[in-house]
Amino acid sequence: MSDLDQLLDTEASVAAVGTEMLAAAIDQQGAAVHRADWQPPTPGTAAALARLAAGGSTAEANSTALTRMLAVRPQLTDVSTAIEVIPGMTERTFLHAGPPLEWERASGPTRGALIGALIYEGLAADPSEAEAIAAAGEIELSPCHHHSAVGPMAGVTSASMPVAVVEDAAGDGVAYSTLNEGLGKVLRYGAFAAEVIERLRWMQEVLGPVLGAALRSRGPIGLQSLIAQALQMGDDGHNRNRAVTSLFLREIGGALVDGADAPVTDRKAVFEFIDGNDHFMLNLVMAAGKLGSDAAAGVAASSLVTVMARNGTDFGVRLSGTGDAWFTAPAPPVDGLYLGAFTEDDASPDIGDSTITETVGLGGFAMAAAPAIVGFVGGTAAGAVRRTLAMYEITLGEHPAYQIPMLEFRGTPVGIDAALVVRTGIRPQINTGVAGKVPGTGMVGAGLVEAPMECFTEGITALAERLE
Amino acid sequence: MSDLDQLLDTEASVAAVGTEMLAAAIDQQGAAVHRADWQPPTPGTAAALARLAAGGSTAEANSTALTRMLAVRPQLTDVSTAIEVIPGMTERTFLHAGPPLEWERASGPTRGALIGALIYEGLAADPSEAEAIAAAGEIELSPCHHHSAVGPMAGVTSASMPVAVVEDAAGDGVAYSTLNEGLGKVLRYGAFAAEVIERLRWMQEVLGPVLGAALRSRGPIGLQSLIAQALQMGDDGHNRNRAVTSLFLREIGGALVDGADAPVTDRKAVFEFIDGNDHFMLNLVMAAGKLGSDAAAGVAASSLVTVMARNGTDFGVRLSGTGDAWFTAPAPPVDGLYLGAFTEDDASPDIGDSTITETVGLGGFAMAAAPAIVGFVGGTAAGAVRRTLAMYEITLGEHPAYQIPMLEFRGTPVGIDAALVVRTGIRPQINTGVAGKVPGTGMVGAGLVEAPMECFTEGITALAERLE
Repeated sequence: MSDLDQLLDTEASVAAVGTEMLAAAIDQQGAAVHRADWQPPTPGTAAALARLAAGGSTAEANSTALTRMLAVRPQLTDVSTAIEVIPGMTERTFLHAGPPLEWERASGPTRGALIGALIYEGLAADPSEAEAIAAAGEIELSPCHHHSAVGPMAGVTSASMPVAVVEDAAGDGVAYSTLNEGLGKVLRYGAFAAEVIERLRWMQEVLGPVLGAALRSRGPIGLQSLIAQALQMGDDGHNRNRAVTSLFLREIGGALVDGADAPVTDRKAVFEFIDGNDHFMLNLVMAAGKLGSDAAAGVAASSLVTVMARNGTDFGVRLSGTGDAWFTAPAPPVDGLYLGAFTEDDASPDIGDSTITETVGLGGFAMAAAPAIVGFVGGTAAGAVRRTLAMYEITLGEHPAYQIPMLEFRGTPVGIDAALVVRTGIRPQINTGVAGKVPGTGMVGAGLVEAPMECFTEGITALAERLE
Repeated sequence: MSDLDQLLDTEASVAAVGTEMLAAAIDQQGAAVHRADWQPPTPGTAAALARLAAGGSTAEANSTALTRMLAVRPQLTDVSTAIEVIPGMTERTFLHAGPPLEWERASGPTRGALIGALIYEGLAADPSEAEAIAAAGEIELSPCHHHSAVGPMAGVTSASMPVAVVEDAAGDGVAYSTLNEGLGKVLRYGAFAAEVIERLRWMQEVLGPVLGAALRSRGPIGLQSLIAQALQMGDDGHNRNRAVTSLFLREIGGALVDGADAPVTDRKAVFEFIDGNDHFMLNLVMAAGKLGSDAAAGVAASSLVTVMARNGTDFGVRLSGTGDAWFTAPAPPVDGLYLGAFTEDDASPDIGDSTITETVGLGGFAMAAAPAIVGFVGGTAAGAVRRTLAMYEITLGEHPAYQIPMLEFRGTPVGIDAALVVRTGIRPQINTGVAGKVPGTGMVGAGLVEAPMECFTEGITALAERLE
């Protein structure tokens, strides 16, 4: 029996697309109606989308960009010091998360982290001196993303900080990230109390050198395999990193047992510091993502999103085909679960480069692999699955290595197409930590947020103009 | 609107229970029919079930037994030597998995493991001498379960082997298990080649003493918390133990870094041995389960299943209310995925005490937490969820600590009620390794199997007789 025969053999029903009034009218008459989940393209983008479609080169460009993003093989090769390895770093350079920013417009957590970093670097004696230095423009503020780097939350990276060196075993890319301090009162959430500075010094004097020596003695650690395994162990790669941190400790542990270069008390302290912080691997997963992001950049006509990043003031997006341009919108508030007595009134808007994970098929895009994450960011396990499923609507492919067991090992949705975002109205799903808006506060919660549509609308419009 | 109004307001349909012929007849007339998933009690059990129900004491007894099972707090306190700690152990005692067994009826893997253990203990020079000693009855064979112990697969435990000591922090129970050798050609799968014996000697001389010293220096490791976390990281506690093994290495790692008593090369070798074996924690999860099983035993009138165990020849079950009796049936074949060139023709029937995990709400009962396990034991992720859901039909409770994120943190089904098994016809779901049937082969695969109904029928009948 052909499909056509079947069609005539079954009961007819009405499909309603886009207009609820029509569907409701049919409903009221007692007839069957199926509502398609569709909405018209985001207002003001029809012309740009038509131009992209007419150009004909975008599909091929997107395929090229995605292939490049997926071809990287990130390896943690060393832990060094920011000023020694990060391109363009000086003693007065302070990297931050998100798109470019000036002190005047900086969010509370960004200000707090800059104050802490100035004290840590010995450039200021106290918070008020630090604020004066920053306000006077005596330091250079620059986005991590402009320096082959990424930083979670405030993302502040200064000259003396130890940084992970992540190299592409399949190419010549290199990416950098600071090491994760843990949760609570930590610099990246904008805290700058004495305990924060003290921990940063220990990280500089012990954690960084011990890890660097361990890596040099055992050889590089392949990150893609660890992340892939972790997705089969309930991680999402953004706010649930317990499995990948455990697997990292298994990788590095042997070298900490017999690492003759460092005192045994330091090696034990390093093991226990990492064991005490289930988010330790976040920064390394981010650096791995940055490699893919950079590899995918610069393909003319491609509407692939290579960067989503926020600084607590602006949310910024970059596309592969629009060069170094940032498309920004106000950073949105986060729908969060709050710690202790904190409430949404204490929260800074969305912040951090950690959305690099969502950009490469992890985080909010991989939540179906990590149902237990809802205890940290809110929502239900069923909702976590729905969020991942929705992301297939706006992505160009499925990750060949990052698989979701509960979806019968389907690859995570990867490669956000800004054109699909504006066409479907479905915004990229992000899970995130929440920083206190008052400088010095630290972490106040974690939650869920969606990227602002304006970034994608502007991006598509700019791409269409380039194609003319 | 009341439920009754709704009933009258919706279309009527027929519910058919138990008789497919009736449902099919309605189907053919084009009417709606819902088939309820029901079957009559297992033939021959109606009288016994009626007697249990009439007695009235079973429900309360089951509640008591389950409460005791769930009250244990297993802690790994030491690693010692079998003859030093296991009750009733002698130099000529060889413990084995499952119900009691004689050499004449022993399965291939049990024979293979006994041969290996005799050589390992220096009681035999080669396999033929070992067979002769065993056949002559010069050694004592005894079930692990009779000695506060459990052993995976063949479960053979001899005097010199290092054993984990798991104590109940909330009571006075103690349970023992050997340490896990890894997969492939290993004693517990019936292999006895030189490499097997050599590994056992290293475990005796290095692994056991180093772990024991590390535990004594750092203090006990709480196992329930590790298992609970691991269930949120894709483990089931039986055939997927990657997460709990990772978490164990995090717990013990610090003490291996600074353990001054043992040479650094030994400590590093121990770290790497455990890192190289994602099944390492299986034996400890089993010993934790044995504590719960023993705690729940001996409640008069209770139909709670305290033990399911197999020796490759027989499948045996014990109930809380029937004392030391074993209710046995032939060990069933396993529906398996086979390694390399092995096929089902190479497989031994079901074997091992590892079904203690299913008895306490793990393994086949927790597969919804471990969708990635299907790559090892076969089936689909959706099937893994269905298997867990079915087990709620035959269990008395939901585990308060062992939660399944994907089921919105519902506790695993725990406390198998033999009466529910025979009443519903739903048999306990087990996942398992598969041993080669020829002694000396080792592992040939892994798969799924259901406990034989006869064990539960016999158990319920015996319990009913006791109640008269």
